[in-house]
Amino acid sequence: MNNIPKGFIFTGKNRLALFYSAVSCRTTGLFTKNLVKAAPVLVSQRKLSKFSSKIRAIIANSGCANACTGKKGILDAEKMCNVSAKYLNLKPEHVLVASTGVIGEFLPMKKIIKGIKNLTYSLTNSPIDAVKAIMTTDTYPKFCSRKFYIDKKEVRIWACIKGSGMIHPELATLLCFIFTDINISKRLQNIALKDAVDRTLNCLSVDGDTSTNDSVFLLSNGLAGNKIIISEKDRNFKKFYNVLNSVCEELAKKTVTDGEGATKFIKIKIFSAKDKNSARKIAECIATSPLVKTAIFGCDPNWGRIMAAIGRSGVKINPEKIDLFINGLCVVKNGTTTNLSTEKLKRSMRRKKIDIDIFLNSGSVWLEYYTCDLSYDYVKINASYRT
Amino acid sequence: MNNIPKGFIFTGKNRLALFYSAVSCRTTGLFTKNLVKAAPVLVSQRKLSKFSSKIRAIIANSGCANACTGKKGILDAEKMCNVSAKYLNLKPEHVLVASTGVIGEFLPMKKIIKGIKNLTYSLTNSPIDAVKAIMTTDTYPKFCSRKFYIDKKEVRIWACIKGSGMIHPELATLLCFIFTDINISKRLQNIALKDAVDRTLNCLSVDGDTSTNDSVFLLSNGLAGNKIIISEKDRNFKKFYNVLNSVCEELAKKTVTDGEGATKFIKIKIFSAKDKNSARKIAECIATSPLVKTAIFGCDPNWGRIMAAIGRSGVKINPEKIDLFINGLCVVKNGTTTNLSTEKLKRSMRRKKIDIDIFLNSGSVWLEYYTCDLSYDYVKINASYRT
Repeated sequence: MNNIPKGFIFTGKNRLALFYSAVSCRTTGLFTKNLVKAAPVLVSQRKLSKFSSKIRAIIANSGCANACTGKKGILDAEKMCNVSAKYLNLKPEHVLVASTGVIGEFLPMKKIIKGIKNLTYSLTNSPIDAVKAIMTTDTYPKFCSRKFYIDKKEVRIWACIKGSGMIHPELATLLCFIFTDINISKRLQNIALKDAVDRTLNCLSVDGDTSTNDSVFLLSNGLAGNKIIISEKDRNFKKFYNVLNSVCEELAKKTVTDGEGATKFIKIKIFSAKDKNSARKIAECIATSPLVKTAIFGCDPNWGRIMAAIGRSGVKINPEKIDLFINGLCVVKNGTTTNLSTEKLKRSMRRKKIDIDIFLNSGSVWLEYYTCDLSYDYVKINASYRT
Repeated sequence: MNNIPKGFIFTGKNRLALFYSAVSCRTTGLFTKNLVKAAPVLVSQRKLSKFSSKIRAIIANSGCANACTGKKGILDAEKMCNVSAKYLNLKPEHVLVASTGVIGEFLPMKKIIKGIKNLTYSLTNSPIDAVKAIMTTDTYPKFCSRKFYIDKKEVRIWACIKGSGMIHPELATLLCFIFTDINISKRLQNIALKDAVDRTLNCLSVDGDTSTNDSVFLLSNGLAGNKIIISEKDRNFKKFYNVLNSVCEELAKKTVTDGEGATKFIKIKIFSAKDKNSARKIAECIATSPLVKTAIFGCDPNWGRIMAAIGRSGVKINPEKIDLFINGLCVVKNGTTTNLSTEKLKRSMRRKKIDIDIFLNSGSVWLEYYTCDLSYDYVKINASYRT
């Protein structure tokens, strides 16, 4: 509890979570790039375009995504904000909304309105309940926190994330909420969040699907009392950025480790790429290959599938320059097999963490990407998610 | 047997297939677009660049892809041609080669040389043995044939295909061999094959992976005796093209139906798209979504995943114009749920054939795309393919 930033209250129950701040927050929101956007995404985006320095609360539900629900969906999402505002004595335009769950169903509004009433009746901090309320196929509540000092003032960050399937860059089925009491300009917090998310939450894939509801929110209320940070050159900005980055990295790793049916955590590192975009494309192609992912699930050292994925990624590579390492063992040198003992490689693949290191030898850019294996349980979970 | 085109002999044994013609063939080859190309692809491509009117035989093996094998791989692939040529009394440059199987291992050359010697010892037609010899995870030999008449001359086409995993457009792990005794110019047969493959074999996906070895060969030896077809306007060209197209379509459907672990055949039709490329991108995005494919495996009417896939395909669509039908039942109208009974939809999803029809209502182009579901068995097969 000590790590909750000053002035925030987080609570949740029965698939409804409430994130509340006693004072206005500077708020950054990043949303799915899927063109089929859920109603809560559209509603929150609209509010942030006008009131991003005045946000006081976020109401979030799980179980129903409120996507492909047309005009009624928009009205329902707005109603979630309005009802929360009413009971919290806030302006409706200062309340954001997020949803996750099945696409194509309408929200059970009666239940939700009753739930909001209950949640707001006595506001006490119960962050785990908030995280649990937004879980769907997640197997455990995923959150983390940090404390650090700026000008001898204690600054706190607390963050939580939901998501384990339909996970892919451009913020796949993720809802991520980050709260801090730091005093920082909105411009700088926008820069910091975009960059941190780009390096972490946009560098992971569970199954290659980008959802209709993905949202990352960063709210800062300034109650830590530090002198406001307004310059990128301020060393305190760097400090904040590093902490924010480590928070996002921890959440990203937790998400992949909790990927639907995942039994292994896979870290793909692309070295000596020409540019970041090429590196990302190649990593993504490997991370979304069902053949690579099932082989790793079965501890099958079938690295040819990794080479095939590199070759079909759409990036112009020179196959004869590629070196490939699995768990530190060199299996391909200059595009050609090293004839490494299959037994040796197979033994090493029994680990829970698999490292895939690829040297393209065609530039100086590197990138890290996280994914997980594809198991029977992934199929099981997703063959009967709704029914 | 009656359907083997004149002058051809097909035989196979112990993972080696031989396709032989008594006279020179005009030959068209289409190959993987994967930048990591297997040695046999590079060797066959080089031969076709010079001798595409002189081809007499193709030697093909399964079990080892001869990919990522460097210079030794190239020499081994050439040796397969040379040894075949020697025993068949042909010029080595008139023999093509194809391989399929595990990437990153060297060919068992001793065994292969012995196998070629045995195969060529007494040449008798045994087409099923040829098809069986190139199977890997295929569960049954996939081939088909046609007879038709041009100027009262009987023309035959016989074709076979191998492939059930690592299947994706740009000729995923497919080896496809098509033989005909028609008399047609090389230019026209190139046009016909490219177009037919584009409409069929490039419109299917089992798992989104494009392999290092994919090859489609069309050999025509002219022995049917029809007057050579040299003009696209010749009605006989249209006749040939239609038959070739139906052969490729049959092979494509067989491939998807035999997709690794497949329990259902899925036909995705995109209507009223702006252009073919957009339609293909959207179909591909649906066909490669593990979430869509597992839902269909589980008969789960979770059509929201289809909408999400459309939205993230990278194609500029207007979500509010989309209509979506599953097995003829309208589930989305103008981007909004029709609130169709889940039970009704679920019942219809128990069928073996699933039709997904999408109306983008933004143009006049349509496209058909085939895929299959993603089952426990897909994971099982691919978690232990090599070990």
